[in-house]
Amino acid sequence: MVELKNDLYLRAALKQETPRTPVWMMRQAGRYLPEYRATRAQAGDFMSLCKNPELACEVTMQPLRRFPLDAAILFSDILTVPDAMGLGLYFTQGEGPAFQRPIRSAADVARLGPPDPEGELRYVMDAVRTIRRELAGQVPLIGFSGSPWTLATYMVEGAGSKTYSHIKGMLYDAPETLHALLDVLARSVIAYLNGQIAAGAQAVMIFDTWGGVLSPACYREFSLRYMQQIVAGLNRAAEGRRVPVTLFTKNGGAWLDAMAETGADCLGVDWTTDLARARELTGGRVALQGNLDPAVLYARPERIREEVAKVLASFGQGPGHVMNLGHGITPDVPPEHAGAFIAAVHELSPSYRC
Amino acid sequence: MVELKNDLYLRAALKQETPRTPVWMMRQAGRYLPEYRATRAQAGDFMSLCKNPELACEVTMQPLRRFPLDAAILFSDILTVPDAMGLGLYFTQGEGPAFQRPIRSAADVARLGPPDPEGELRYVMDAVRTIRRELAGQVPLIGFSGSPWTLATYMVEGAGSKTYSHIKGMLYDAPETLHALLDVLARSVIAYLNGQIAAGAQAVMIFDTWGGVLSPACYREFSLRYMQQIVAGLNRAAEGRRVPVTLFTKNGGAWLDAMAETGADCLGVDWTTDLARARELTGGRVALQGNLDPAVLYARPERIREEVAKVLASFGQGPGHVMNLGHGITPDVPPEHAGAFIAAVHELSPSYRC
Repeated sequence: MVELKNDLYLRAALKQETPRTPVWMMRQAGRYLPEYRATRAQAGDFMSLCKNPELACEVTMQPLRRFPLDAAILFSDILTVPDAMGLGLYFTQGEGPAFQRPIRSAADVARLGPPDPEGELRYVMDAVRTIRRELAGQVPLIGFSGSPWTLATYMVEGAGSKTYSHIKGMLYDAPETLHALLDVLARSVIAYLNGQIAAGAQAVMIFDTWGGVLSPACYREFSLRYMQQIVAGLNRAAEGRRVPVTLFTKNGGAWLDAMAETGADCLGVDWTTDLARARELTGGRVALQGNLDPAVLYARPERIREEVAKVLASFGQGPGHVMNLGHGITPDVPPEHAGAFIAAVHELSPSYRC
Repeated sequence: MVELKNDLYLRAALKQETPRTPVWMMRQAGRYLPEYRATRAQAGDFMSLCKNPELACEVTMQPLRRFPLDAAILFSDILTVPDAMGLGLYFTQGEGPAFQRPIRSAADVARLGPPDPEGELRYVMDAVRTIRRELAGQVPLIGFSGSPWTLATYMVEGAGSKTYSHIKGMLYDAPETLHALLDVLARSVIAYLNGQIAAGAQAVMIFDTWGGVLSPACYREFSLRYMQQIVAGLNRAAEGRRVPVTLFTKNGGAWLDAMAETGADCLGVDWTTDLARARELTGGRVALQGNLDPAVLYARPERIREEVAKVLASFGQGPGHVMNLGHGITPDVPPEHAGAFIAAVHELSPSYRC
């Protein structure tokens, strides 16, 4: 096993002291990079890129060649799990992901079982192994999954939705069917993330993209509860180190307190909640990741630097801050603006750390 | 002037006692009603319906013929104001509203002035007058406008956006240009809403649909500040009664405390914040409107009734609750489910009121 040269991210996510704030970007391997667009064109479509471990490794590495990032994140998609469950994932032109066989009934749910990480999902594990080799200890590799609620939203809607009529119809009218679906998804995600950890992921993150569309009571019952089940089921140690677990509910600022009770090490925060407020709400129980508005990257570099300074000041002194955007970097950002963001963190953060 | 037969909504929005909780639905005149779809087909397109006072009156009255609602709301669109400013509003098939001449520069902003309510916007004032005649005192009529930030978002983006790249680019890179735009919009909205009040609107509501995409500091500077300017500029009395003003920021649960400081009488709350929590945050300074998840209306009537009971219990005892959905009713809801919602409020709410 190659020695890890930069462990700033792993330490900050565990609230350990670091000489500066580590930084990475959600969706850092993405369409804002011309080299990504070239590799994707070579792969054909998006899922062909995800399913090719060599090309998935290539796009994972691309942002690290440009920027002094402190972590790599597996290039993949949250819908690999429902795809492996046999729902028939496809991508429509301009409309995003869709499933040929959406889940609408208890009978549909009863047919589902957890996919084998080294079977149907072996291409993800192979990508993790390939990336770890290629990284050669430069920075840690983050694995990830969608949350059960978020995966269920896609699986039941079958395609993008503005009204969530199918999943919320199930939630309010047939909650036992939804619980059965969320349970098989939680068990699937545990196996999937433990598979990634066994293959070499040194940290994992759970993306709860749609938890924020729920009422407070429904969030606890249908999203948070299953993320807690996952946190409890993960292998939290690998290669002699603790594997930090980060939970991120978009628009979940009101629920950070409850999220901090799950046993996660770190919580992602979007830009609609100040980090100062997030620290108050979580009371030192977890590290925090975030939270520059991704739209700041549309501004000129001097303004980006000023906004980075505000995020650092909002978190304030002490360990436990992983700098990131509050959501994924958008395709129309100039790559040099991403560079300005990362450079500002390197320059300005040491005075906030111990 | 005809006597108002049902003033429950006006009293509840001013925190006065009522024997039961008044109820209306955002977008109650809308596509879920077959009679609305028929009138709209007769009008041709959506803006032709808005610009025809007789047909706008007809669709405003339609839900009142079906359901025992406690308020009517003017049928119109928030984009009437930018349309009257000369931006060239049009509706694309399936993509929503767009402008032929979006606002991108200080020079674009400098050309804008507040439209005359009895000039370019006379069709809205005529609709208000027509609806008041037709209502004949049955229930009060609510007028409305978009918030300056929300109008600016559409005007600068020029069309629907997922990334808000143009408006947020302006916010972070040229805030003085955005402030000039928001100022002319605030003055326009004051004249527009005062025009509606003079024409017969007995209450007004400001929809801040996109305030929730801002950071806390940006929300205060670019959205809340201009809503406060509007609240201060409105004529708050008409026909010998106070005209209640309601502010609604979608996804604004974290900012209810600050919103209560604007001088508004009532705040709209979406379903991601419990009314009990909203009451704590606002400490009795304002009435509260909301907040059933509109998706509850996909469930069967017994479940709708149970969820209505939860909303009533969350607000609890005492005056100052206007029942509503947490956002507009969606087009695919069966009309009888809306009826079940309204019936449940009539049946269950008296025990919570004085």
